[in-house]
Amino acid sequence: MIIREKNPHGGQIYDKNILLDFSVNVNPNGTPDSVIESAISGVMQSSSYPDAFCTELRKAIALHYGTDENFVICSNGGAELIFQTVAALKPKRGLIVEPTFCEYRQSLEATGCIAETYQLKAENGFNLEASEKNILDKIKQDTDVVFICNPNNPTGMVTPKTTLNKILAKCNQVGAALFIDESFGELSEGYDEFSMISEVESSPNLFILKSMTKTYAIAGLRLGFGLCADEKLIERICKHSQCWNVSLPAQMAGIQSLKCTDYVKNTLKILVTEKEFLTKRLTNLGIKVFEGRANYLMIQADRRLYSLLLAKGIMIRQCSNFCGLDDSYFRIAVRDHDENLVLIQTLEEIGKEVDLCIGQV
Amino acid sequence: MIIREKNPHGGQIYDKNILLDFSVNVNPNGTPDSVIESAISGVMQSSSYPDAFCTELRKAIALHYGTDENFVICSNGGAELIFQTVAALKPKRGLIVEPTFCEYRQSLEATGCIAETYQLKAENGFNLEASEKNILDKIKQDTDVVFICNPNNPTGMVTPKTTLNKILAKCNQVGAALFIDESFGELSEGYDEFSMISEVESSPNLFILKSMTKTYAIAGLRLGFGLCADEKLIERICKHSQCWNVSLPAQMAGIQSLKCTDYVKNTLKILVTEKEFLTKRLTNLGIKVFEGRANYLMIQADRRLYSLLLAKGIMIRQCSNFCGLDDSYFRIAVRDHDENLVLIQTLEEIGKEVDLCIGQV
Repeated sequence: MIIREKNPHGGQIYDKNILLDFSVNVNPNGTPDSVIESAISGVMQSSSYPDAFCTELRKAIALHYGTDENFVICSNGGAELIFQTVAALKPKRGLIVEPTFCEYRQSLEATGCIAETYQLKAENGFNLEASEKNILDKIKQDTDVVFICNPNNPTGMVTPKTTLNKILAKCNQVGAALFIDESFGELSEGYDEFSMISEVESSPNLFILKSMTKTYAIAGLRLGFGLCADEKLIERICKHSQCWNVSLPAQMAGIQSLKCTDYVKNTLKILVTEKEFLTKRLTNLGIKVFEGRANYLMIQADRRLYSLLLAKGIMIRQCSNFCGLDDSYFRIAVRDHDENLVLIQTLEEIGKEVDLCIGQV
Repeated sequence: MIIREKNPHGGQIYDKNILLDFSVNVNPNGTPDSVIESAISGVMQSSSYPDAFCTELRKAIALHYGTDENFVICSNGGAELIFQTVAALKPKRGLIVEPTFCEYRQSLEATGCIAETYQLKAENGFNLEASEKNILDKIKQDTDVVFICNPNNPTGMVTPKTTLNKILAKCNQVGAALFIDESFGELSEGYDEFSMISEVESSPNLFILKSMTKTYAIAGLRLGFGLCADEKLIERICKHSQCWNVSLPAQMAGIQSLKCTDYVKNTLKILVTEKEFLTKRLTNLGIKVFEGRANYLMIQADRRLYSLLLAKGIMIRQCSNFCGLDDSYFRIAVRDHDENLVLIQTLEEIGKEVDLCIGQV
């Protein structure tokens, strides 16, 4: 029997006895009631096919983000759109800023494309701005697509617009597409300042990916979208997929989600407070915290951390399968205060027996 | 602005004022209550990611169809799996028995594959068995994949196992995959007799596609699966897609659906009676009915039929975009008696003004 290695990510809680899941980065406030109600209403109508054009959802997204509905393409979770966009772009050589979400590489390799790595360094705090010149040099005439996750997953680091605009200009110059994944934008501090959405209309070689599953805690429903002014590319992406890829519950939940602006604002406030709390207490335990701006924290600690926590029913994300990270790196979601406290107390308990600092094995 | 031509099918009710939809072929009995309840329970848990391996659903499918769970791959509707399988097979030359569902061709063309047509003829009643020798001759050394929809969509015609086994043997001989779409199997008379599912375990070059959206009226939830004993192919298909392609509501609805055996049996009884009713009354109106075995009927009538019915709020499926059919062909779903009666009465009313026989324009 071949073992299906289909999930190299967090959130695979189905084969373990998990009490608390810090391995996935969805909104700790849970799904808004109104969104659940809309999804249920979608279930009730599911003897019909979903709208193949996601007409209402695309309109709502365009209105929310101040763009044209023809520049919006919806998908069965953000991850689907990575594969579809790569299939439509048919790149020969892609450049990925790593460590990052592994689907960019997987999608490039599935189509036989050469996937190059631009490796962010620990000594720079995994910061892209710090090595701006190097990445510009790395984007060459034969580069067809560049992938940047912003804020980056798993580091939480943000690349500022000044750097991104230089990269965009270089991509434009060499005829490459720039694929920026802003899936964690809404759950990050200062999203308005670093988002490249305002550049979409004037930059047809820019593709912005957005997941809705994290922001509104609808990971199980699957919903994402892309923003791109290259309508011919959008048409090609459509040709690489079935026409009913976004379910009716997901479309209806998505439309309602965009109305939950207070919910997102409140979440962000909690996240800022809780990140401070976690950072302070983790640091006290001798754990190194990378102070990213997203709703998760990358940490570096004793390699046994994952299994020690799992034995207590707490799952965190091992980062050893991210390019350039080893098994001393972990990612933890920022949850609500009660859950974060349980994590800290459990770590403090473990800390009495085991030194949690890096390299204590 | 580029018009997105993403839905060449029926069911696109969202931009029209539709009272009755005969353009899609889902179970006329509607979604079973227990299935709706399971889907809602999935919505309630949707702050979690779905099981990337569809473990419980695959087990339930394997048990239901008497096969190995490792031979089962689940998808976001059957249509998704057509694209994924073609992306994984990377065929250079594919053969499609047409007229049929247009996604086979779309998926082949999206990957740059040559898509050949084996054209079924009206004079043979669009029957594949009748030209068995011709299709065997058409499958050549350079054929990489053959697509057959059984029962066929839109004709409703069934190819018997004797013919399919000969085609399978020929595919095996030339090293081609045989892709049989049995999505309408459960809603067809005598499915047990013509299904090739029992051949899966002994034939690694056979891939059976199943949709669950039609049988259990969950088109809006999106759920399908494939059965194939070539586990390496299944692994390659997984690599061509995100890992969370099947939503949590769909997985839970799917598991419950398979328990609804009485519902399917009852549906089939109704379908048989209603098909007789429709066939008789349509024939009385001078409309030619192709007596297929599925839950829909292909008919041939005056070309204006579609627009005349649409003006009365009834949508049927125009078939002019099926290879080898012209705009005198239509497909109508078999609905429940009340709906079928409205269709017939509306046609009778129209028939008073317009001759509905073929070629009366």
